[in-house]
Amino acid sequence: MYEGPVQDLIDELGRLPGVGPKSAQRIAFWMLDQPAEDVQRFAQVVSEVKARARFCAVCFNVSQEETCRICRDARRDQTVICVVEESKDVVAIERTREFRGLYHVLGGAISPIDGKGPSDLHIRELLTRLADGTVTEIILATDPNTEGEATATYLSRLLKDMGLQISRLASGLPVGGDLEYADEVTLGRAFEGRRYVEGSARPAPRV
Amino acid sequence: MYEGPVQDLIDELGRLPGVGPKSAQRIAFWMLDQPAEDVQRFAQVVSEVKARARFCAVCFNVSQEETCRICRDARRDQTVICVVEESKDVVAIERTREFRGLYHVLGGAISPIDGKGPSDLHIRELLTRLADGTVTEIILATDPNTEGEATATYLSRLLKDMGLQISRLASGLPVGGDLEYADEVTLGRAFEGRRYVEGSARPAPRV
Repeated sequence: MYEGPVQDLIDELGRLPGVGPKSAQRIAFWMLDQPAEDVQRFAQVVSEVKARARFCAVCFNVSQEETCRICRDARRDQTVICVVEESKDVVAIERTREFRGLYHVLGGAISPIDGKGPSDLHIRELLTRLADGTVTEIILATDPNTEGEATATYLSRLLKDMGLQISRLASGLPVGGDLEYADEVTLGRAFEGRRYVEGSARPAPRV
Repeated sequence: MYEGPVQDLIDELGRLPGVGPKSAQRIAFWMLDQPAEDVQRFAQVVSEVKARARFCAVCFNVSQEETCRICRDARRDQTVICVVEESKDVVAIERTREFRGLYHVLGGAISPIDGKGPSDLHIRELLTRLADGTVTEIILATDPNTEGEATATYLSRLLKDMGLQISRLASGLPVGGDLEYADEVTLGRAFEGRRYVEGSARPAPRV
């Protein structure tokens, strides 16, 4: 235990997710070594983030203005919405450059354990966006875990009679990974979702 | 990349030692979810730490007042000084409850690569503390690495003609560790520093 403000700082840093007591101590002493203006700038950015951070009024992505860059971009395909849990997921999908449509950020997933139900997510706002018929396709890109699956299932049922194309991202082996290290659920999904090679014979359709 | 203040926060967090881009993102979104007063308190502690943190005028340990709790404590043995590199080392040694003397925090170690020489450490102030003859023993507890060893060697030479007891902390196997995982230097030191069991025969002293 240190005396005074240094210990206060270590305590505060130790509350951050993923920062243990040793890291907190390391960061605190590093800060003491930094130029005062750098530490002030950091404090200011932290201090202002809650007040200045905004969320897009249309899709609830992190935004600097009333609506986000993606929603304002007329070149994006206005007929497809990719539904994700968090803004982080938007960034991850944008990095792939595979998707040129719009997003809808739910603000989490259905999780009874955390007391989070459908009414705690931006689902009503999604329905509003679908009302005028511009959107014809929905891609459900919630996380491939229990909560994400539950949320995707909930949304599928909710939307299924609206005449939309609805799809779920493929589950399977991570690219660049080793098959032998894949967990059994992932490997099972990879079998289930296998694709037939072009020109190969196909199984007879089940009746 | 996010828009605006959220990305600013992620950038600032990513500069902290040991915080990678993924952690920075995780902490940033966690902060957005926290009550505003908690985030403000964190910002304030960071903002004030450089101005409010003080170092003991005697030993250079982190302190809340002009001199630190340890230097002010008359029950501590005033005849022994344990010389360490950083305040973190004081905390580590205090936790052992093995040492009841005073400390002297050098503020680092001699490191030519980092352009750090003896004059950049609080060595002159250590000599001042030794002037009145109260201190009769010095324990050199710098880190067991190249810089720490160089610093201890430098101090040993500097102090050796002053009639003080000077010692260096023992190197050896970490308690609770596995011998097979010890690196060869540590294992070599453990052999070199081995202690004869009480009552056993001793080797003949070398002539």
